[in-house]
Amino acid sequence: MKKEHLEDYVLTIPDFPEPGIMFRDITSLIQDPDGLADAVDGLTDAVKDLDFDLVLGLESRGFIFGTPIAYNLKKGFIPVRKKGKLPRETVSASYDLEYGQATIEIHKDAIKKGQKVIIVDDLIATGGTLEAACKLVEELGGEVAGIVVVMELAGLNGREKLQKYNVKSLITYEGK
Amino acid sequence: MKKEHLEDYVLTIPDFPEPGIMFRDITSLIQDPDGLADAVDGLTDAVKDLDFDLVLGLESRGFIFGTPIAYNLKKGFIPVRKKGKLPRETVSASYDLEYGQATIEIHKDAIKKGQKVIIVDDLIATGGTLEAACKLVEELGGEVAGIVVVMELAGLNGREKLQKYNVKSLITYEGK
Repeated sequence: MKKEHLEDYVLTIPDFPEPGIMFRDITSLIQDPDGLADAVDGLTDAVKDLDFDLVLGLESRGFIFGTPIAYNLKKGFIPVRKKGKLPRETVSASYDLEYGQATIEIHKDAIKKGQKVIIVDDLIATGGTLEAACKLVEELGGEVAGIVVVMELAGLNGREKLQKYNVKSLITYEGK
Repeated sequence: MKKEHLEDYVLTIPDFPEPGIMFRDITSLIQDPDGLADAVDGLTDAVKDLDFDLVLGLESRGFIFGTPIAYNLKKGFIPVRKKGKLPRETVSASYDLEYGQATIEIHKDAIKKGQKVIIVDDLIATGGTLEAACKLVEELGGEVAGIVVVMELAGLNGREKLQKYNVKSLITYEGK
């Protein structure tokens, strides 16, 4: 049955992937046809009046939401992947995790100088991955026209890292 | 510029991820707005007359093509993920790689008894991952109404493992 609010489709799983984390689970949202349609339509509406050339999605939940936006708005889709997964020449950026670092990559020919991109992911938490993705875009001479996510954990202050950018989220959770 | 054939968008990268492999790269397909639209439209057309309830996509390139099909046909989307990524109760299946094994998982509540599903991935190579995904569907009491992929490497005989199923691919490469 169609739910009134998008957040009504999202399950919260306590202590995943580790104790103390309240995991906001979008798989319950996308497994419902109305939930998936509402999320994709909401994200598409959030960016459709911006001027941009390409949609970037972050591996792997950003692929789920990024491709239908690109398809709806007749743009190309660029995957940003974890290190070692892309077959052609890449540029990479690292960001801090709670313990250690992670590295993401993008194909060098994915963005041409001056192209404007929208970056899509499921979630803004600390903003580290999205900030690294913005660096990749800028390193290739592109411009971040917007960042759009389904959910935002406002208590983790990810927007502070992203304050230069136009950031939109469909659901805001006040906590972490 | 719009290309005549879908395969004209696909780059072939020799020796990736290891020597001797001709890697068929769909990132060059999806980064082109016409390539992405033609692939998604082709996959959607390939399944739109089948009777099914859900679209399953295999991590992570199956997410790229699975979600727009689900969205186009107003179905729910179910991610099949590598071990340890899904937050709720799962069932899992393992399959052989050249060296060792890999395990994929699906949420236990993702498919209800009797539901029909379409499984989406970018590629059929040996068919091992797709066969494991079919097992997961059947273990949950679901039925595989079809398997649809962008590309098929016919020389690896993946269809032999999948001969019980209705398999469609948009592009067939005769080699490996």
